[in-house]
Amino acid sequence: MRIGVFDSGLGGLAIARAIMDRLPQYDYLYLGDTKRVPYGVRSQSTIHEFVGQALRFLFRSECQIVILACNTASAESLRKSQQEYLPHHYPKRRVLGVIIPTVEEAVSGLQSPRIGVLATASTVESDAYGREARRQCGAAAVVQRAAPLLVPMIENDGIRYIEPVLDEYLAAFQGLELDRLVLGCTHYCLLKEMVRARSGLPVVSQDEVIPEKLADYLVRHPEMEDMLGKNRERRYLVTDVTPTFEGFAERLAGAPVRLQKVELE
Amino acid sequence: MRIGVFDSGLGGLAIARAIMDRLPQYDYLYLGDTKRVPYGVRSQSTIHEFVGQALRFLFRSECQIVILACNTASAESLRKSQQEYLPHHYPKRRVLGVIIPTVEEAVSGLQSPRIGVLATASTVESDAYGREARRQCGAAAVVQRAAPLLVPMIENDGIRYIEPVLDEYLAAFQGLELDRLVLGCTHYCLLKEMVRARSGLPVVSQDEVIPEKLADYLVRHPEMEDMLGKNRERRYLVTDVTPTFEGFAERLAGAPVRLQKVELE
Repeated sequence: MRIGVFDSGLGGLAIARAIMDRLPQYDYLYLGDTKRVPYGVRSQSTIHEFVGQALRFLFRSECQIVILACNTASAESLRKSQQEYLPHHYPKRRVLGVIIPTVEEAVSGLQSPRIGVLATASTVESDAYGREARRQCGAAAVVQRAAPLLVPMIENDGIRYIEPVLDEYLAAFQGLELDRLVLGCTHYCLLKEMVRARSGLPVVSQDEVIPEKLADYLVRHPEMEDMLGKNRERRYLVTDVTPTFEGFAERLAGAPVRLQKVELE
Repeated sequence: MRIGVFDSGLGGLAIARAIMDRLPQYDYLYLGDTKRVPYGVRSQSTIHEFVGQALRFLFRSECQIVILACNTASAESLRKSQQEYLPHHYPKRRVLGVIIPTVEEAVSGLQSPRIGVLATASTVESDAYGREARRQCGAAAVVQRAAPLLVPMIENDGIRYIEPVLDEYLAAFQGLELDRLVLGCTHYCLLKEMVRARSGLPVVSQDEVIPEKLADYLVRHPEMEDMLGKNRERRYLVTDVTPTFEGFAERLAGAPVRLQKVELE
């Protein structure tokens, strides 16, 4: 059995790579829905439909644990999948999102955390970070800002133009005396040093958080860990292949990646 | 019967509006595939699949003529649709693309036209503008440049950051003594004055070309014109609705637009 990592597109490769570096022994299957990326601009019902198709595919492909490495997907669909789909069809499998562990890290050690969140329009609109922070810590104050230009600029080789755009988004957090700033989209990992330098805030980046949280989870759940294949297998599946996707995948993964095309339905 | 206008998303509204201004008497149906926009980053086979679904929908919805107001879709799928699909299923209907009329305008009156084309990655990769220009005028020289950041920046309220990005794309055309520069993507109509000012070149913009070409076509084809309803009906259909799409539609159409959700398959 494998660890599955799902993202709407290729941004999740940054997280997948960090997980594989931290836990190299397992078998991994990455799935990116490049035929319909980006999800961050779509409605909640559309996102839930697409995520459901992806999860069914990954469970049929022998994934024991699936990491929803997409904040938009986690925000919209994680709870629904965990409550409605898994118990009936795959009671022994697990879907883990990125929002709960990221919020755990963001509020850890603080009495009355003041947290900023930079994310896609859809994630901000869902208020998933606000709800989760208040659930974990009643005294938490959360300020969220949608940053719709960052994903397309990162995906289309536009990072060199991003500083003035980023500065405008970050201006929303100035003077708020935040304790931490959460990068609430997997793509933003690529900007973490730029955000640290320009905001002056402690930044919570998911490529640093998620691998540790998954390692903890596997220690606490040996019955899951036992099921996992340990042949260091890596497969990268996408729903559409183009030269741009191949180039971006290579930049994110830090090495050539063979993308295999599959259909979701 | 109606005039259908199809685009991968909402960019085609700029063209639809210009057509409706020029030919206000007819009934129109606009369809934007916002559930899967943008097409410009996707593979040729995926684009052809999506365009086929849209055309079937529009013909079933009583469109006599469909304007493929999307350069990516025209580049990839127009000829296939015209040759393989229409003759068998709807022999009396027509699909008109945007590339042929745009090239007619770009080469008109020139002996050895030197044409620049700014377009999406997929349109450039298809070489549709190069092939069409050489077909219309053997002596044509065409220089194409992909501008992948422009569509997402326009769609996500990023025009105010676009000048340095645009300047870098336009630099590819400097010193080439071009006769005309074609904006080969419907979204770029919104940048036409900026491109004119910064390039110093005569710019061919599709919101100026396509309405005139369609008016000509209807004069030359009265059997088509006779079929069209003349009740000034306007319907706007999309495959996904969000507040961002609604705001962008209103900016493009210049007035509030009621978006109705439909399914393509």
